[in-house]
Amino acid sequence: MDEPVVAVVGGGQLARMMAGPAAALGVRLRVLAESPEASAAQVVPDAPVGRPADDGVLARLVAHPSPADVLTFEHEHVPGDVLHELAERGVSVQPGAAALVHAQDKIVMRSRLEELGAPVPRWAAIGSPAELEAFLGQVGGRAVVKTSRGGYDGKGVRVVSAADDVVDWFEAAANGGPGLLVEELVPFTRELAVLAARSPSGEVRTWPVVESRQVEGVCYLVTAPAPDLDLATEAAARQIAVQIAEGLGVTGVLAVEMFEVGDPSSSADEGTGSRVLVNELAMRPHNSGHWTIDGAVTSQFEQHLRAVLDLPLGDTSPTAPWTVMANVLGSSRATLTDGLAEVTALDPGAKVHLYGKDVRPGRKLGHVSVSGHDLAEVRARAEAAAGVLRGGSDGPIYWGGGEDG
Amino acid sequence: MDEPVVAVVGGGQLARMMAGPAAALGVRLRVLAESPEASAAQVVPDAPVGRPADDGVLARLVAHPSPADVLTFEHEHVPGDVLHELAERGVSVQPGAAALVHAQDKIVMRSRLEELGAPVPRWAAIGSPAELEAFLGQVGGRAVVKTSRGGYDGKGVRVVSAADDVVDWFEAAANGGPGLLVEELVPFTRELAVLAARSPSGEVRTWPVVESRQVEGVCYLVTAPAPDLDLATEAAARQIAVQIAEGLGVTGVLAVEMFEVGDPSSSADEGTGSRVLVNELAMRPHNSGHWTIDGAVTSQFEQHLRAVLDLPLGDTSPTAPWTVMANVLGSSRATLTDGLAEVTALDPGAKVHLYGKDVRPGRKLGHVSVSGHDLAEVRARAEAAAGVLRGGSDGPIYWGGGEDG
Repeated sequence: MDEPVVAVVGGGQLARMMAGPAAALGVRLRVLAESPEASAAQVVPDAPVGRPADDGVLARLVAHPSPADVLTFEHEHVPGDVLHELAERGVSVQPGAAALVHAQDKIVMRSRLEELGAPVPRWAAIGSPAELEAFLGQVGGRAVVKTSRGGYDGKGVRVVSAADDVVDWFEAAANGGPGLLVEELVPFTRELAVLAARSPSGEVRTWPVVESRQVEGVCYLVTAPAPDLDLATEAAARQIAVQIAEGLGVTGVLAVEMFEVGDPSSSADEGTGSRVLVNELAMRPHNSGHWTIDGAVTSQFEQHLRAVLDLPLGDTSPTAPWTVMANVLGSSRATLTDGLAEVTALDPGAKVHLYGKDVRPGRKLGHVSVSGHDLAEVRARAEAAAGVLRGGSDGPIYWGGGEDG
Repeated sequence: MDEPVVAVVGGGQLARMMAGPAAALGVRLRVLAESPEASAAQVVPDAPVGRPADDGVLARLVAHPSPADVLTFEHEHVPGDVLHELAERGVSVQPGAAALVHAQDKIVMRSRLEELGAPVPRWAAIGSPAELEAFLGQVGGRAVVKTSRGGYDGKGVRVVSAADDVVDWFEAAANGGPGLLVEELVPFTRELAVLAARSPSGEVRTWPVVESRQVEGVCYLVTAPAPDLDLATEAAARQIAVQIAEGLGVTGVLAVEMFEVGDPSSSADEGTGSRVLVNELAMRPHNSGHWTIDGAVTSQFEQHLRAVLDLPLGDTSPTAPWTVMANVLGSSRATLTDGLAEVTALDPGAKVHLYGKDVRPGRKLGHVSVSGHDLAEVRARAEAAAGVLRGGSDGPIYWGGGEDG
């Protein structure tokens, strides 16, 4: 039968987690994998191996063995000129290169968000150490310098108090490396994230705002919805995500990472008096949305496929009062199958997702989601389960849970 | 990494729906498909094509390209002698041939269930028209004749009032065809089903009892849990499933289809006064359990993989008060992708599952599940969505549902 074909650049866990929803929707997935044993290549038939920047690789991906209906991405490391060229030849590239550049280049992103009126930290593109020193003078002596391109999961981000702290990055920039920008150190109370999906015909849906806890720039715990978030901030955060999705012409899933900051100018009547600033964007399914697999009517992976194919979007309502997702970042175990058994023996309701990767320190090997009515219990269970998979459990923690025996 | 490998005999939708959970659990699925375009072969890498009865096919399936940890099934049409031979050579066959025969041969099943004390309809194995006529005389002139082997989805089942009605089956039996049995026409009030899973080390879990509506012997609507089921009958039905799983040594998922009948001997104090009789068994994920994908913490497909690998079993609690599953049996559409779009436009909360099959009359092409708090609404939505996919919608029916726009 004539099933839609979606070609995905990248064979990591994000593409892997599209495979289940693709099968349910009757969509053929084709992934361009980094190696034959890449996370997604293990579970998707006939995954070609190659790098998107290599000559002709993407053109072959969308043409063989049959024409793909859409080309999309599970990471942003794709040359824009190649995408422009494919689009000119009639390939449906979702999101398009003109949108994707905002997830590739932080200077372009910050400039455009300012134009849109979205709230962002104070920032400046910096072409010289003198410009950085001038910015530091304005913000009290410390700030965050970022490379405009190539950063992720805490890489390409450095807190500095003098231009000397990034002398290597200035040298690299002078030799054709990525440009630099500097941002104020935002005194945030916590990090939030909003996930939205937009289709080419303009339908937009957002999921509830979540709280994201990071360690060294890497997400490790997501709570959905964000606890104790006042309604006005929730509404504002979702509206910002819709505004960005529409303003940048995003298609597919958009993740907007935000800082929540106290706002002393608000009166108590207006709620808790917090506001949000946009930190980062991603135009693909995102770690802050993994909870949707087990905790929402429509997962971000199903929604991404729907959106890029311009199918109507699914309901984004949560299916439980609370869902907490904990990442498994590295493990002292040789393999995770034993850990899976141990987790379930302790907590039969913990939903384990493994990515089929070899264990390496700090690597995203999988995640666990737990849903329920009591936030403290749900969070403790998710953290305990992820701890067992990481091999660092202090001992057995028993949870009730479920039907008969 | 050393991921468990599960080899599945059969490439239909049941194997297809194992693919998502297999990826999440870090399990490599290998399916023996009927053709390269079989439902599961579309979504599972490197699915070998062959028939399980063919010489050496199963031995190759469990050996190449790497040894499989387990051999299991998505249908019962597998020769027992081949399975016995594989088990003797050390292959973990789950369920084993000694258990599986009860899902292959209804005479063996009925005899063994009687020995176990499980409630079954009045029945008899019949070797001659005279024996059938004698049984008909005892039960009021009408009864159900079944072929002991090879029947499914209403095939191999005939309501008769005289031996002449199955003269062809007697002839076939005399020429080496399957044996015959006869059963009383049970005056059931409705059909129920209980799903259980059992692991080789003896852990058993059951899901809530569901109501199953059939048309011409084919399941088309499942309501979970079964509405208005008194607690004593619910407990009895689940206990019967556990008893059968343990008594027959079942491993993996076991589906027990039952008749609910009124019991005039019960007093009102004991509830609605119903009891159950066991109708059919299946030892694999079953249509009556498709609701668990969207409506239970652990789906039957994940649980089957867990059980056959002897991993601890997951929580079988429902995630919503009601989930209704409606089958898509045939369609007037050429393909179902348009139908998918139409369903979601009308009801963004309807979960659509397509099987990647060419449209043929009466064929199981997919299913829809809807969850919620109001049973009448949930059922109407599931039936409406399945109707849209079948192409027989009377017109648009709009459902609210979900978050923002």
